[in-house]
Amino acid sequence: MVKVAIMGHGTVGSGVYEVFAMNAEKIARVAEQPVEVKYVLDLRDFSHLPYADKFVSDFSIIENDPEVTVVAEVMGGTGAAYEFTKRCLNAGKSVCTSNKELVATHGEELLAIAKEKNVNYLFEASVGGGIPVIRPMMQCLAANEIREIRGILNGTTNYILSEMIHKGVSFEDALKQAQANGYAEKDPTADIEGHDACRKICILSDLAFGDKFDPNAVSCEGISKITLTDVEEAGKLGYVIKLIGRAVRCEDGTAYAYVAPHLIPKNHPLAAVEDVFNAIMIDGNATGDVMFYGKGAGKLATASAVVADMLDAIAHAEKRRPVEWGDGSKNLLRPIDTLESVWYSRKPGKPAVITGPMTTERAMRDCKDAAALMRVL
Amino acid sequence: MVKVAIMGHGTVGSGVYEVFAMNAEKIARVAEQPVEVKYVLDLRDFSHLPYADKFVSDFSIIENDPEVTVVAEVMGGTGAAYEFTKRCLNAGKSVCTSNKELVATHGEELLAIAKEKNVNYLFEASVGGGIPVIRPMMQCLAANEIREIRGILNGTTNYILSEMIHKGVSFEDALKQAQANGYAEKDPTADIEGHDACRKICILSDLAFGDKFDPNAVSCEGISKITLTDVEEAGKLGYVIKLIGRAVRCEDGTAYAYVAPHLIPKNHPLAAVEDVFNAIMIDGNATGDVMFYGKGAGKLATASAVVADMLDAIAHAEKRRPVEWGDGSKNLLRPIDTLESVWYSRKPGKPAVITGPMTTERAMRDCKDAAALMRVL
Repeated sequence: MVKVAIMGHGTVGSGVYEVFAMNAEKIARVAEQPVEVKYVLDLRDFSHLPYADKFVSDFSIIENDPEVTVVAEVMGGTGAAYEFTKRCLNAGKSVCTSNKELVATHGEELLAIAKEKNVNYLFEASVGGGIPVIRPMMQCLAANEIREIRGILNGTTNYILSEMIHKGVSFEDALKQAQANGYAEKDPTADIEGHDACRKICILSDLAFGDKFDPNAVSCEGISKITLTDVEEAGKLGYVIKLIGRAVRCEDGTAYAYVAPHLIPKNHPLAAVEDVFNAIMIDGNATGDVMFYGKGAGKLATASAVVADMLDAIAHAEKRRPVEWGDGSKNLLRPIDTLESVWYSRKPGKPAVITGPMTTERAMRDCKDAAALMRVL
Repeated sequence: MVKVAIMGHGTVGSGVYEVFAMNAEKIARVAEQPVEVKYVLDLRDFSHLPYADKFVSDFSIIENDPEVTVVAEVMGGTGAAYEFTKRCLNAGKSVCTSNKELVATHGEELLAIAKEKNVNYLFEASVGGGIPVIRPMMQCLAANEIREIRGILNGTTNYILSEMIHKGVSFEDALKQAQANGYAEKDPTADIEGHDACRKICILSDLAFGDKFDPNAVSCEGISKITLTDVEEAGKLGYVIKLIGRAVRCEDGTAYAYVAPHLIPKNHPLAAVEDVFNAIMIDGNATGDVMFYGKGAGKLATASAVVADMLDAIAHAEKRRPVEWGDGSKNLLRPIDTLESVWYSRKPGKPAVITGPMTTERAMRDCKDAAALMRVL
């Protein structure tokens, strides 16, 4: 019998409990023993739930219980989640999380503690929700140098763009629909300005290239300036507009990483990714392009990825999974203006593709207005 | 330093050597030590190669060398490959393979020996070549019951169908093109009659459902009877024809598994998979559908998946990966005629979709000719 704890009982946290309940038999088969959720940490009142007796409001109960060996951190943010994760790891407990903000911001420190304490810090659910991405990239592509990563990493913006492309809905109205459908938060900034996608491309870059990519240093442009006219003009030329998180490795080991709307040819596999779906395409120097596709969010999908990590942590209780990256001192991030692309100039009245590839500076000679330029994938 | 051997120096085997050479640094980083190919087993003369000194023609040299702890079996077939794999496992060496025929035919026996000897028998490359499928399904979806698997599992047939659909090439001419391009063998039976896809859906079913699905018992229909007229008529109704390997789990743990051409709605993600690309869609009861996409074959892609397994075997030298399935005595396979579907009747002159779902018998009441029926996905 393994005992685990869940920190946070929001959407993902309650989903983690639900997955343990609904798939108990399968989980016991994989873990080769039953797995029991001993505690759920949350300050709110859940006394109406059938598992109300699991709830604790004092973190130190989990921290000080040696029976609990694996903890799910599904609180979100970089406040208490950061502190509690550190204390769990220091107490010799593995931590599994969907918290992309925490991994992108403090991953290297938390992984260093995990290494020192010989426990696991795993975060498959932090990128792509329930879509397998991190483990396939790190394990199945282990014999590859990763050359490039291109992903539709945010379901909210992809839903908004899909509505604009296929139904002619304006950005503002599509955003309102997304909020009404529960796909977007009341404050949608993190999604529509690309910050969420930025954290995810940083995590993938950290893993692929071995040193920290700071979300604050990575160029990040969202979709709030994309108009229906842009979408229509791009369509006429055979493209769709998608928000892409992208990382490109250079020969010397440095890399580009950024988030920006791109024009994508309609026959490209990423162009067919609609609505709230995500897809991540990874180019290995031996495999070529492989793509992972599915719903990038959702309660049970994300929760099941957290639970899969917990099962992996149980399997690797003695010999931890070797995951780590540097503190950013290698300065691998290249200035984005030097990344050559084919460009699209969306100047009113005469939109056109500027064949290249060329740098931003060179593209600016053709199109004087930086805000009117968009990269073509 | 870890020492490994490669059995077979055909397309994949020479690719395995090439991946070790081209990505030596990355491989050493992942293995946390250098990895050296000590032997390559092949009976043919490769004395012109710069690594000619690695070649041996006597298997017992590998078998009896305690330095060699991990072996790639990339010989193919179920003859010498079967015997040598058993002897390697019995000698305490992990074996990694792309040999789908051997895994589908004798997997349960080889996994049982691997378990007894506490070594690994891994075969990520046997399904989807370089596309990560098995590891994501077994690990990332570990907290899910797998409800359904649908895959374009054979690149040759997908290439032929793509040529028929998009260029109006006849089946016979598309097959000749595939042979000219090296996508099809001189004897293309295993591809076009679906046997290759059948082995792959059997392996995925073995893993997902826990007991052996015998390729000889699984219903298998290829694409040799698909005509240009079929493709055109389906197109008019909004469908494309694809060869699909499919497995469906029932509530009681039994399952359907089969290979057959299907009509697929044009907006379905699998419909967009063209040419030699493969894609496998897996439906977990918590994640919903996730899809894995890429080139399903190719020397370096397949080879890099074998090497990734070898790295995993090195990492799990002490605590093996728990992979196994039963000997087939649970008789999980359901008779295919009882699987309800929407059907397509391709009777000359009046092709039509028969709305359902209904069993084969019920569909036969509408369309008297069994050969004229095709399932709709």
